[in-house]
Amino acid sequence: SNCEEMVLNVQFSPLTPPSGFSSYNGGEMNGTSKMMDFLEEPLPGVGTYEDFNTIDWVREKSRDRDRHREITSRSKESTWALIHSVSDAFSGWLLMLFIGLLAGSLAGLIDISAHWMTDLKEGVCLAGFWFNHEHCCWKSNTTFTDRDKCPEWKSWSQLIIGHGEGAFAYILNYLMYVIWALLFSLLAVLLVKGFAPYACGSGIPEIKTILSGFIIRGYLGKWTLIIKTITLVLAVSSGLSLGKEGPLVHVACCCGNILCHLFTKYRKNEAKRREVLSAAAAAGVSVAFGAPIGGVLFSLEEVSYYFPLKTLWRSFFAALVAAFTLRSINPFGNSRLVLFYVEFHMPWHLLELVPFILLGIFGGLWGAFFIRSNIAWCRRRKTTKLGKYPVLEVFVVTAITAILAFPNEYTRMSTSELISELFNDCGILDSSKLCEYVNDFNSTKGDDLPDRAAGPGVYTAMWQLALALIMKVFITIFTFGMKVPSGLFIPSMLAFYHHDWVIFSGWCSQGADCITPGLYAMVGAAACLGGVTRMTVSLVVIMFELTGGLEYIVPLMAAAMTSKWMADAIGREGIYDAHIRLNGYPFLEAKEEFSHKTLAMDVMRPRRNDPPLTVITQDSMTVEDVETIINETTYSGYPVVVSRESQRLVGFVLRRDLIISIENARKKQDGIVSTSIIYFTDHSPPLPPSFPSMLKLRSILDLSPFTVTDQTPMEIVVDIFRKLGLRQCLVTHNGKLLGIITKKDVLKHIAQLANQDPDSILFN
Amino acid sequence: SNCEEMVLNVQFSPLTPPSGFSSYNGGEMNGTSKMMDFLEEPLPGVGTYEDFNTIDWVREKSRDRDRHREITSRSKESTWALIHSVSDAFSGWLLMLFIGLLAGSLAGLIDISAHWMTDLKEGVCLAGFWFNHEHCCWKSNTTFTDRDKCPEWKSWSQLIIGHGEGAFAYILNYLMYVIWALLFSLLAVLLVKGFAPYACGSGIPEIKTILSGFIIRGYLGKWTLIIKTITLVLAVSSGLSLGKEGPLVHVACCCGNILCHLFTKYRKNEAKRREVLSAAAAAGVSVAFGAPIGGVLFSLEEVSYYFPLKTLWRSFFAALVAAFTLRSINPFGNSRLVLFYVEFHMPWHLLELVPFILLGIFGGLWGAFFIRSNIAWCRRRKTTKLGKYPVLEVFVVTAITAILAFPNEYTRMSTSELISELFNDCGILDSSKLCEYVNDFNSTKGDDLPDRAAGPGVYTAMWQLALALIMKVFITIFTFGMKVPSGLFIPSMLAFYHHDWVIFSGWCSQGADCITPGLYAMVGAAACLGGVTRMTVSLVVIMFELTGGLEYIVPLMAAAMTSKWMADAIGREGIYDAHIRLNGYPFLEAKEEFSHKTLAMDVMRPRRNDPPLTVITQDSMTVEDVETIINETTYSGYPVVVSRESQRLVGFVLRRDLIISIENARKKQDGIVSTSIIYFTDHSPPLPPSFPSMLKLRSILDLSPFTVTDQTPMEIVVDIFRKLGLRQCLVTHNGKLLGIITKKDVLKHIAQLANQDPDSILFN
Repeated sequence: SNCEEMVLNVQFSPLTPPSGFSSYNGGEMNGTSKMMDFLEEPLPGVGTYEDFNTIDWVREKSRDRDRHREITSRSKESTWALIHSVSDAFSGWLLMLFIGLLAGSLAGLIDISAHWMTDLKEGVCLAGFWFNHEHCCWKSNTTFTDRDKCPEWKSWSQLIIGHGEGAFAYILNYLMYVIWALLFSLLAVLLVKGFAPYACGSGIPEIKTILSGFIIRGYLGKWTLIIKTITLVLAVSSGLSLGKEGPLVHVACCCGNILCHLFTKYRKNEAKRREVLSAAAAAGVSVAFGAPIGGVLFSLEEVSYYFPLKTLWRSFFAALVAAFTLRSINPFGNSRLVLFYVEFHMPWHLLELVPFILLGIFGGLWGAFFIRSNIAWCRRRKTTKLGKYPVLEVFVVTAITAILAFPNEYTRMSTSELISELFNDCGILDSSKLCEYVNDFNSTKGDDLPDRAAGPGVYTAMWQLALALIMKVFITIFTFGMKVPSGLFIPSMLAFYHHDWVIFSGWCSQGADCITPGLYAMVGAAACLGGVTRMTVSLVVIMFELTGGLEYIVPLMAAAMTSKWMADAIGREGIYDAHIRLNGYPFLEAKEEFSHKTLAMDVMRPRRNDPPLTVITQDSMTVEDVETIINETTYSGYPVVVSRESQRLVGFVLRRDLIISIENARKKQDGIVSTSIIYFTDHSPPLPPSFPSMLKLRSILDLSPFTVTDQTPMEIVVDIFRKLGLRQCLVTHNGKLLGIITKKDVLKHIAQLANQDPDSILFN
Repeated sequence: SNCEEMVLNVQFSPLTPPSGFSSYNGGEMNGTSKMMDFLEEPLPGVGTYEDFNTIDWVREKSRDRDRHREITSRSKESTWALIHSVSDAFSGWLLMLFIGLLAGSLAGLIDISAHWMTDLKEGVCLAGFWFNHEHCCWKSNTTFTDRDKCPEWKSWSQLIIGHGEGAFAYILNYLMYVIWALLFSLLAVLLVKGFAPYACGSGIPEIKTILSGFIIRGYLGKWTLIIKTITLVLAVSSGLSLGKEGPLVHVACCCGNILCHLFTKYRKNEAKRREVLSAAAAAGVSVAFGAPIGGVLFSLEEVSYYFPLKTLWRSFFAALVAAFTLRSINPFGNSRLVLFYVEFHMPWHLLELVPFILLGIFGGLWGAFFIRSNIAWCRRRKTTKLGKYPVLEVFVVTAITAILAFPNEYTRMSTSELISELFNDCGILDSSKLCEYVNDFNSTKGDDLPDRAAGPGVYTAMWQLALALIMKVFITIFTFGMKVPSGLFIPSMLAFYHHDWVIFSGWCSQGADCITPGLYAMVGAAACLGGVTRMTVSLVVIMFELTGGLEYIVPLMAAAMTSKWMADAIGREGIYDAHIRLNGYPFLEAKEEFSHKTLAMDVMRPRRNDPPLTVITQDSMTVEDVETIINETTYSGYPVVVSRESQRLVGFVLRRDLIISIENARKKQDGIVSTSIIYFTDHSPPLPPSFPSMLKLRSILDLSPFTVTDQTPMEIVVDIFRKLGLRQCLVTHNGKLLGIITKKDVLKHIAQLANQDPDSILFN
């Protein structure tokens, strides 16, 4: 998509020699080489990664265990070391606390600002321009019912021409609404373009990729955080059909990443840092929905890759702190943790499962349709000229959205406001009153028929809602993936709230015994979200926490299940996975079973007719030989063998480590020349003094490379790559080294078997 | 412990030749070799496991994928095959539905029966002996307050001597109470001893072990199910200090295992079956607490070993169906899913976190103390004569429990009834009324001072509760691990409810502004449970679902966290892990990080001075040679090498497969004699006709054995064993085979490093 196109541009420009760090975006993630380490590292740079590479989970975890062992053994020596050891053990919890506090505060700030700026599109408060509509009218001593018409709040027409009645005032308000919307969205897109290209989009596909072990420097940096926070407010306020949930996850992950720098333990270890990011993602969902348990499950089910039980507990803590902080800030003014709290406790009947399942089917169909259309549009944007004019695109989409949105009462207000207002009011009141309420609501716009119960007003509302639904559906397809922060949740939920309203209104006007409408809205929203994201348990738990209704788990489950089945029958991928594939991120899907019957020998390099594998011998190659190999090949590492003839594997050495070590030795170690022999053995033979001194590199040799036999089924190889988080794996036959399989080879192989272009997989 | 002692006895008796199946308990789990398979297996028995062995997860999952591929490829051939394919895909969901229905029904049955039998200890209903106290009094038209004194319900003294007043009646009731209790518990212990020794205890340690890949035939069989269901009712009714939660998980797992036999997919695959069992465990917790989400998290966090995301969704479905079924049966008569629903929504103050954390500390201390004492007692039972008289032990403990319990109002009633009654009544009422309530409650027993608010009645209640707490604490230590089905949850919860009551009563009588007492009870219960089981997220979620109070997550979390930290500081293991270790089950703990710096070469066999590893060559050994190796060694498998000299690894062959294949070949294949050469190669050389015909065994050779180098750190080896579920791993050095590490070696090594007896690890 357009948004990710920019990520690629960022990537391809600084693709300079291997030893250079990308200095983009202040280099938030490459601090590893600058700081002092607790454990002295022999060479700076050894053991770090380049940008757009995959980390080696096994090595990272080993390093952390070494660190831990060191601290534990030192803790017996002195009191200071003991304190250090204890503080090290608690640093994880402290970090979670900070992440929770920061994510909660930012979410509160975003909510308050977005609320104010959304209202700014319609008018301004005379008592102080920084008050939003609701706050403004709190100040005046009007009653609750009249609070929308308080004297301090002036619509733009009232402010400019002095009154709010008539066609001219309407047109003036309309114009101001569109102008503000355009202003906000243009500001957002320019900020993103100018300062932090990574701040665009939902961010969840990229975070999934990062959590699976990929490195994108600056994606979770401080500039991204600042710009994303600002532009998220602008984008939501502009009235575009997008939600703040995905971006909030991104914001929370940025917080997590930045706060990691406070603690050596997390700053210097990519695997540990990813544990923190998983927890931060949970905190992000937690503040987006006020659903701490749902957030943790979302992180577990959808976002995270490596999620040990320890992380589960910590994530829960972070999510809870974040939700609690948000509640203390109280941006919704109802002192609830929950955004759309419902009070109804009407039991539902077993027969109602039929409509719930129908809702599920509809949700699944909508989800599959949405994913297909959105992906087709994003691909078009990527391949045609369209992608070259992101600002123009945002301008056009915002203009269309604003122009279409204003005349319709239901699309004019902000999305989340609409959901919660409709939901709350009708949830508490009796359902028949609700119909009257809809009637009343419309009567303020011209239908002066308050006495005719469920008359034309209901039908007007139905039509408006149906139109709103159709409009939202189409606009959202074009909006998601634009170069502004955009989430998906709320729009797809909204779509269905509307839809349900229609169903409900239809039923209720027939006079039969009315069914809790809020429940249908809730179930419909779950079905749609399920269809789009393919979430399961986390979806049900989020919906249940969102509304606080413990008794509605069964309907939610039924709809979510049907929706997922339906959507899976049409296309296997959820929206995030579809975007990952579209952008060619090296993400090894953990949910899909690899079901083909290929063997390791079919995937490994070299292929059958290729020249043999490039190897380094353990005690017979000179510095020059090795440098030639490094310059002639682009592999990220080389196997070390006993001798070329025997091909018995000794270990594996990374290209990056090799370059750094040789460079360093040439500079600092006397007597290292091009003819020096490199030894990877434990003991090197005594050399005659005439020989140039030798270079011992056993310390950078990985003595425990993973190996599989050439006959190993690829399903097992894929499993090993997934579960152990490998970067590469060597292939042997009867004890002889035969080839190598990298994560990229595995991904290409999977793409090939799925009849996709294997070269769509980018990066290493 | 006594209970597990019997498991061992069962094990050691049928430890007969490798090819024989244990026929114990009807052999529910060994159906694999009897049934027709969809995929034709060349030899029956190849690919199955012996009792008390560990499964190979990789192989099992591979076999399931093969099966799936077969079905998918056939599905294109005919409509029938297509239907088969679709039904195969949905069989998992159908199975979950059945498990949910069965587990929910059984739980309902158990609840109703236990309720009735508990009341039977105190009296009988004249309107029909099958009514319990509550039902009996529903029939009579008395008001709610008088329902305890309805005419149809007769206490034993009323029935026998005609009235319920005076010392003689009291003694008579006392006596009947003790007799019934003894009768129930003796019946329970005799049933367990006579019919299903596996039905004793909580079952969770064994289920954890089974889920990690161990095979205990009959542990989840139909006899165990029947006997456990009956004896659980008896044990709960007898008034012993035990809960039904652990046993309900066992019952649900039995249901899951038995229902697996309906579907080939699950009957024949040990790995798939374990996925089902994980879901069944979730259903068990779900019905025990009415907490479907908590159940799933419990299964994920505490019980399960391999828990893919697919299982998460299915577990949730099973747990929900089970909870819904139980609610439909409605054993508590309040049409709630939740056992101890609380209605209070009083906000809590931030300052209250201090007492909550203190509760956490107390809970942690109590948990650590309980685990130590209980393990010490169980070890004593195991090593001394005590273990030989299980029936006597149960008799004595029941007698003491009953004698101590009757005089105290709070211990006389059934544990769960007590919790829910105290909780509910005081939750709804105002807290100052609650104090009066306690007062009123006691006044019915003699203190006729209803007007004196919070007077002696409160203090009496306090003393009674304190006594009850102390008694419960000590009795539970001796009860858990006895040879009757016993759970832990409710007792430890109860203990704390009491304790809190004390705290609360003390505070409230001081006249200050009273604090929601139910909340303290809830938090205290969470702290105690956390200390004993070391559960984290699942505990908080269970408590929250149990009571329905979304706003109390933070206090629960604070207490659970402190409690876990406190208890972990004293001893790392939770009660289940401690029992697993006590019994020497081969369970590879996934939570604890392996933190030592040993290498694979330190753990592998053969050790440094041992004779070299027993290997089989690929094309030079005769049937007799191999049979000699099989008879002289007890290893469960042998590596196959190119030649003894080169020690280049070709594959791995399992002892069991080898025995079965040779036996089969000798019987059925012409010309196989002791001098026949066994070929594991792909192509065998043409033999002169004078030679005996050769035996080709490539089909049973595992061509992709896992290998690590001798320099691999043990932390990585442990990680591989855990994550891939290996049974054994071969060790190489520079491409030469050097040794082998089995799961048992790993467990022994871990035990050794923890200064434990490595021979305490039993089984293979």
